Amino acid sequence: MGSPTHEHYPPELSPEEEHYLLLTLKDWSIAHGLAVRPAPSFVEPSQDPTGVLATTAPVTLFPSLFPRRCFEEGLAIQTAYNELYSAIARDEEWLKSIVEELVNIDEFVRKLWQTHLAVKKEGYVQDLSLGLFRSDYMVHVDPASADSPAGLKQVEFNTIASSFGGLSSRVSALHKYLLTVDAYPASTSSIIKADALRQSKAASSLAKGLAAAHKVYGSSRTGRPLCVLFIVQDPERNVFDQRHLEYALLEESGVRSFRLPFPRTLSDTQLESDRTLVYVPPNSPSTSYEVTTIYFRAGYSPDDYPNEQDWVARLLLEKSRAIKCPSLLTHLAGCKKVQQVLATPHSPHLKRFLPDEKVASGVFATFAPIYPLDESEAGKEAIKLAQDPASAVRYVLKPQREGGGNNIYRKAIPPFLKKLPETHRPAYILMEMIEPPPLKNAILRNGEVQKGGVIGELGVYGVCLWKNGSGEDGGDILENWEAGYLLRTKGDQSEEGGVAAGFGAVDSCCLVDG
Amino acid sequence: MGSPTHEHYPPELSPEEEHYLLLTLKDWSIAHGLAVRPAPSFVEPSQDPTGVLATTAPVTLFPSLFPRRCFEEGLAIQTAYNELYSAIARDEEWLKSIVEELVNIDEFVRKLWQTHLAVKKEGYVQDLSLGLFRSDYMVHVDPASADSPAGLKQVEFNTIASSFGGLSSRVSALHKYLLTVDAYPASTSSIIKADALRQSKAASSLAKGLAAAHKVYGSSRTGRPLCVLFIVQDPERNVFDQRHLEYALLEESGVRSFRLPFPRTLSDTQLESDRTLVYVPPNSPSTSYEVTTIYFRAGYSPDDYPNEQDWVARLLLEKSRAIKCPSLLTHLAGCKKVQQVLATPHSPHLKRFLPDEKVASGVFATFAPIYPLDESEAGKEAIKLAQDPASAVRYVLKPQREGGGNNIYRKAIPPFLKKLPETHRPAYILMEMIEPPPLKNAILRNGEVQKGGVIGELGVYGVCLWKNGSGEDGGDILENWEAGYLLRTKGDQSEEGGVAAGFGAVDSCCLVDG
Repeated sequence: MGSPTHEHYPPELSPEEEHYLLLTLKDWSIAHGLAVRPAPSFVEPSQDPTGVLATTAPVTLFPSLFPRRCFEEGLAIQTAYNELYSAIARDEEWLKSIVEELVNIDEFVRKLWQTHLAVKKEGYVQDLSLGLFRSDYMVHVDPASADSPAGLKQVEFNTIASSFGGLSSRVSALHKYLLTVDAYPASTSSIIKADALRQSKAASSLAKGLAAAHKVYGSSRTGRPLCVLFIVQDPERNVFDQRHLEYALLEESGVRSFRLPFPRTLSDTQLESDRTLVYVPPNSPSTSYEVTTIYFRAGYSPDDYPNEQDWVARLLLEKSRAIKCPSLLTHLAGCKKVQQVLATPHSPHLKRFLPDEKVASGVFATFAPIYPLDESEAGKEAIKLAQDPASAVRYVLKPQREGGGNNIYRKAIPPFLKKLPETHRPAYILMEMIEPPPLKNAILRNGEVQKGGVIGELGVYGVCLWKNGSGEDGGDILENWEAGYLLRTKGDQSEEGGVAAGFGAVDSCCLVDG
Repeated sequence: MGSPTHEHYPPELSPEEEHYLLLTLKDWSIAHGLAVRPAPSFVEPSQDPTGVLATTAPVTLFPSLFPRRCFEEGLAIQTAYNELYSAIARDEEWLKSIVEELVNIDEFVRKLWQTHLAVKKEGYVQDLSLGLFRSDYMVHVDPASADSPAGLKQVEFNTIASSFGGLSSRVSALHKYLLTVDAYPASTSSIIKADALRQSKAASSLAKGLAAAHKVYGSSRTGRPLCVLFIVQDPERNVFDQRHLEYALLEESGVRSFRLPFPRTLSDTQLESDRTLVYVPPNSPSTSYEVTTIYFRAGYSPDDYPNEQDWVARLLLEKSRAIKCPSLLTHLAGCKKVQQVLATPHSPHLKRFLPDEKVASGVFATFAPIYPLDESEAGKEAIKLAQDPASAVRYVLKPQREGGGNNIYRKAIPPFLKKLPETHRPAYILMEMIEPPPLKNAILRNGEVQKGGVIGELGVYGVCLWKNGSGEDGGDILENWEAGYLLRTKGDQSEEGGVAAGFGAVDSCCLVDG
């Protein structure tokens, strides 16, 4: 990453070079569905009330440089992560201990747990679970010893609604196409080359995960045709990302699926007396479907539950016989608190779920030190670090909740803590900042090109299908594979990720050695 | 076409049915590049100065009904049409006799012919020619005997810039997808079924034509890498249609191509002393390419030549060694005057080009009677028909020029003729109106759905690659194949075709018997 050539990457483009690159990129992206519905700030909804306009998804003009060893490490470790999180999701007792620390602080976690208890009371009728995970990392270079090799450090682990699998496949194909048609200046030919560009198979691989769950569900109990149900937000600007999975599922596995806006759950589904879930398409009520698999692309955020009825809807889905992607306990396993207790040095937890020491130490090496803000020894230490402006600059304070947007960074931490009631502290974790190497790129968004320093976040997808077990029977993993990758790149002045939220771009990896 | 079921096609949709169909269609179209850049009336250029917005191409919601026998006839006759037009293009003497009738009336034809003569004077250095043709038809039902079977009648034959091959492949796939996901009501299941929907392979098949020319050009004379050059308009709203050919050419045949805006011809190309054409990409002037094949998607209309320099540009391209698609003589063969003399009953011309009587009579059966407006016997007869309001209602008056937009229909003909100087009459032909059967459909355009009576126009693509010959040596046809189809559908109140011009939609055929 530190070679002189790389410092001048990407190259400055002449006006003619930039014109050709952008023209090629803009046309290819629309021709291949690397698209989003335009933001209201770009196209007012009143101008396009029926929603037929689309635009190129925010993308980088160049593939970002990424250390080959880190990339390969991230992909190689994914099946261990799948194993870890499926083991956590199967360990209700342990999860309960985690959740109990949060229920009085985090209303959303409390509601999810209550929903789990309500289903449990009636008895779960489906012991299969599907995870379409994404483990997010940044490259970390120790600021104290810049010569030490770059390492991969986990930012977070997503157990629900892991997005951008569809677009990640497209953006890696885009960058490869741009190379093929010489849209990159000849001066980059020693860097951007075929064997350095990594194609992401995420769309196809995630769809195969859904197909695997669909198949293992078995034959129809009601005589109805079978389907997979995508639970979605409405409207959804990132709809093409999801559609690419839907199309791959149909084309590659012949599996029908439907998009159900989450607020329509109660009107468009029925729970049979044996808890079979039936989907009744509003356009064709006489042809209903038996749901094999529920794929949540909504329901992951408190914002998806404005009314109590929304919790009734989630409960109905969870009570059903359909395989959930993810189950409630898997959803809860994605709490930052879980990440924190796993990453707390010398904690016994990782060993509990990954008995193989070698596997566990491989996973542990990707953790950035994380501390609780509680009464434990580590917690007391953490509070000191966070209150002192001199040490706080190396940390980030994160709420336990999903979704991003509420992190407190570096020198903002001490004043924030002062105002925070002490009893609310356990709702947060303190994490050592990952210090990524300096990188540059250019991002196309809403027709504008922004250039400058960027930070890249590598997301590695994983598919895991397992059978829950209780007591002695710890359950079985039926399927477990690494499912491609995503690179998200954002301007380094912004400290939040998430392309859909308007802060970043989809990208692909240009691998470099050293 | 006249069965009671078909009279109620397409069915009325409930709001829920229409919602599902439109949502499915709008997302699929963008995800698969069935798109156009939005019209200025929909998105003002100032709102999107860099051109990143796109929208679903105007499409029909349902595949239109089309008589199976007519469809198969149109596809089967295409290779004969390819043979016919390549023979015309090889017969300079004959073409000269046609053009001589037009040079004093039609400035554009005169300029094309002069350009041909200028090249001829220096000597043509390339004797290979490529045609990517499209023969356009309508279904005709004799209004005097409604029980007689429907027949296919030719509207026009396009020898240059035959468009919509890229989108036609997409729209037939769209309608098939909509069937697969039950977006069509169950009541249509006896009509819209897999074996009734015809997929168009036009994008791939036309690209194979370009690849065939590229290959037969032979090896590089200059040591430069080889390429195909698309001569295009700029801006081009229908760019994705063209890009799909470009992508197919690269993916399926490994052939590089470039888009050259026609006005940039003189700045971005060079003619070597041996007439090799060299393309110098503005983004990378140090890597120039030798052009094997020039594919005109611009230059077909007088509007493309606002300055004398544009004719200099056309001459440069025509003088070059690159294979032209089409050559000047092939371009001229597309004159409506040619169509007229072929379709004039008992004329000797068709036999001249298609000596096999069976082949010739098959082609002749697809002609609608066409008359010249000249001094011949047929011409005098035609002028009488056109001047009499009673007979004029069965006719259309068409200028010899390409491009559409200037036809005079039915009762508008007599007053138009009155104002037209007699010497200008030969610039027009009189054609019996084709009387298509009544059809209905719904069209999505700019986010709005328009429903009602429609007229469908079937375009059949053909690829023909030949070697010119002179005198005894009549030349050889090297490649000749039918290359898929396009259905364009427009509201029946409009009498002009052409989706890009804003009057119609791309469609696919749902074949029906009888």
